[in-house]
Amino acid sequence: MSISMSSAATTPLTHLNPTAPSQISAFPTSLSLPTPSPTRPLSITCSSSTLQSQTSTTTDRLFNFAAGPATLPENVLLKAQSELYNWRGSGMSVMEMSHRGKEFLSIIQKAESDLRSLLSIPPDYTVLFLQGGATTQFAAAPLNLCSSPTHAVDYIITGSWGDKAFKEAAKYCNPNSIWSGKSDKYTKIPNFDSLNQTPGAKFLHICANETIHGVEFKTYPTPAGENEVLVADMSSNFCSKPVDVTKFGMIYAGAQKNVGPSGVTIAIIRSDLIGKAQPITPVMLDYKIHADNNSLYNTPPCFGIYMCGLVFEDLVEQGGLAEVEKKNVKKGSLLYDAIDGSKGFFRCPVEKSVRSLMNVPFTLAKPELEAEFVKEAAKEKMVQLKGHRSVGGMRASIYNAMPLAGVEKLVAFMKDFQARHDHA
Amino acid sequence: MSISMSSAATTPLTHLNPTAPSQISAFPTSLSLPTPSPTRPLSITCSSSTLQSQTSTTTDRLFNFAAGPATLPENVLLKAQSELYNWRGSGMSVMEMSHRGKEFLSIIQKAESDLRSLLSIPPDYTVLFLQGGATTQFAAAPLNLCSSPTHAVDYIITGSWGDKAFKEAAKYCNPNSIWSGKSDKYTKIPNFDSLNQTPGAKFLHICANETIHGVEFKTYPTPAGENEVLVADMSSNFCSKPVDVTKFGMIYAGAQKNVGPSGVTIAIIRSDLIGKAQPITPVMLDYKIHADNNSLYNTPPCFGIYMCGLVFEDLVEQGGLAEVEKKNVKKGSLLYDAIDGSKGFFRCPVEKSVRSLMNVPFTLAKPELEAEFVKEAAKEKMVQLKGHRSVGGMRASIYNAMPLAGVEKLVAFMKDFQARHDHA
Repeated sequence: MSISMSSAATTPLTHLNPTAPSQISAFPTSLSLPTPSPTRPLSITCSSSTLQSQTSTTTDRLFNFAAGPATLPENVLLKAQSELYNWRGSGMSVMEMSHRGKEFLSIIQKAESDLRSLLSIPPDYTVLFLQGGATTQFAAAPLNLCSSPTHAVDYIITGSWGDKAFKEAAKYCNPNSIWSGKSDKYTKIPNFDSLNQTPGAKFLHICANETIHGVEFKTYPTPAGENEVLVADMSSNFCSKPVDVTKFGMIYAGAQKNVGPSGVTIAIIRSDLIGKAQPITPVMLDYKIHADNNSLYNTPPCFGIYMCGLVFEDLVEQGGLAEVEKKNVKKGSLLYDAIDGSKGFFRCPVEKSVRSLMNVPFTLAKPELEAEFVKEAAKEKMVQLKGHRSVGGMRASIYNAMPLAGVEKLVAFMKDFQARHDHA
Repeated sequence: MSISMSSAATTPLTHLNPTAPSQISAFPTSLSLPTPSPTRPLSITCSSSTLQSQTSTTTDRLFNFAAGPATLPENVLLKAQSELYNWRGSGMSVMEMSHRGKEFLSIIQKAESDLRSLLSIPPDYTVLFLQGGATTQFAAAPLNLCSSPTHAVDYIITGSWGDKAFKEAAKYCNPNSIWSGKSDKYTKIPNFDSLNQTPGAKFLHICANETIHGVEFKTYPTPAGENEVLVADMSSNFCSKPVDVTKFGMIYAGAQKNVGPSGVTIAIIRSDLIGKAQPITPVMLDYKIHADNNSLYNTPPCFGIYMCGLVFEDLVEQGGLAEVEKKNVKKGSLLYDAIDGSKGFFRCPVEKSVRSLMNVPFTLAKPELEAEFVKEAAKEKMVQLKGHRSVGGMRASIYNAMPLAGVEKLVAFMKDFQARHDHA
């Protein structure tokens, strides 16, 4: 099937004011898309993307809605490209630098400093750059925070990732699932007052944003244990908004959603919790080893840390996480308004108050059209919109680096798609 | 002190035939360096470096003798730079690709295929791309290859890395140090016939090349255990020469010396050994999980794997590991001949038959000159020549990607340095 759209539709979208997404958020009456003509290719463009590459034009780029690894800021990629062969006159690539040399030390120190600034990380918290993804932390957290495998730990399970963390913990502690959203297909966050926390639990674990199910904590529960240790997997909403780090005993995040390429995991740990690892802890999973060596016990993922540093610098230059959050709210509202305004053509199963601003899962009232939707979107250079294989449907991941223009283009496409298919 | 050298010395070096290093290997008579003049800067150039960058000239580049992360092939860096922003028309960077998308799958499959070709890896061996460095494998190997912590394992300890592996293993098995070179300051490899292996040991572990001490196995011991499982940490000589993989139960290597950037660890495992991990094994250290998921159980270090793939492709294009070994023998001979021909001015402590072709440690008869040597070399754009902090002296790491020109320049500098200081 050939998808097409007349130039009459292209024109208003091209001139869309990116600062006023409400222009297209009332659906579908405010922007009447004409009946598609089968002879001309669909061409939806938006004006929000302003950065021009020196080496390649922005029109080459896809809008990549992947859940991670995910789109990176275009200016960060261009900077990394420009200095890949010879980093700032050093005569070598970042990939070739000794991790103990002054050049790389300046890179990792700047990255940590910018991250501390972005999240206002207090001095009594340790920042670690690690490897192995959040999945490695599913084991490392109980191994380090429970000095004995008999210790109790509480898990609130709001999606697949929280569930994986819970299951891995059973090897190293006595984990309790004190709430699970599974029976509701992971569309909710519990009322914190109703939680039955285990007395003496060493920590309370949450997944702050469930990448697959699109459920996001907007506030945080208070752990009942004497040390009040809240541990959060923030892989998919890390640095997407300001967070009060002092409410947490530990935050960890794989970099490959919001802050860098895959292969780097960041952990922010209240320093008094470090140093009590179980004897069976592999040395590479022992927070004290990494803390004592400033993340340089062995060779770290240097280029990945460098990329994270470029992203942190970019977030600082954008005005910090409060500004970043405003952009994310705008993008999320635009997309959720389009879904909710579609009169049921598109549906998001997640309870409105806890919908993720990062991962937006949605379905079609006519599931038989979903494959067509994903295929047509890809032809329009909007890729990776298929939902996770475990839940089906669609998912648009709209991390920090997804430009407003990408969400605008997706929303325009959704409206056009509906106009062409909603005439049953 | 101002280091200098007359143009009379520069000329023959500039015209040195790179295919005939013996021209300068007889020391110091075959190439008479004039007495240095204090007025002109030292300028040693060689002709072996032929690749010209489109974006930056080769003269910008340092000769980087770091032990790892280490110098990478210049053509690989330039290729990575050219496609960093938009990988082969895909509209995205490799760093932005879903690890389950067809683009990245083509990258990781090509990388594995080229590696299998380079090392003639038989089909009954599994290749894994992992994270966490060789240090993580120090724990993972016993966790996976010993189904019980009571199992015995033998370690031959020829340097610091073998010793670290041995110590980590004590958490997960019953390791025996059946030979240690510590009393000889790690300068030897044992006679294999004299080894007293433990009956029933689940594997015999060696570090095939000790990065710090410069000791390299040239042949391999036969394990006594019924399964004949030899496990080798090949981090610092991986892909530097052909290896008969069938002699090993497992080979593992951090990528950041010979085959890529830091953050990728490669494991080659006889498949029948996989699937017997201890219950306390973190899921990310379980070989079966990674084998069953083709290294994609969680998000792998995608960009690092891509870089390894570019290096493998380059090694294939060079004619494979037999050709690569010839180049490494030439570079190593040139440097060791210079040391041995210096009449004791330079010294290498390692027994001649087991000297590493990758890491060349050496000292000065006058240790008070070592800091000066390192400093002057750095001024001449030869960096990271200081020995590891645990052993002192100097170390030149001359991995696959170190051009012959780099070794020639170092040798010329060594001769000049001696000429200026050896007149006591």
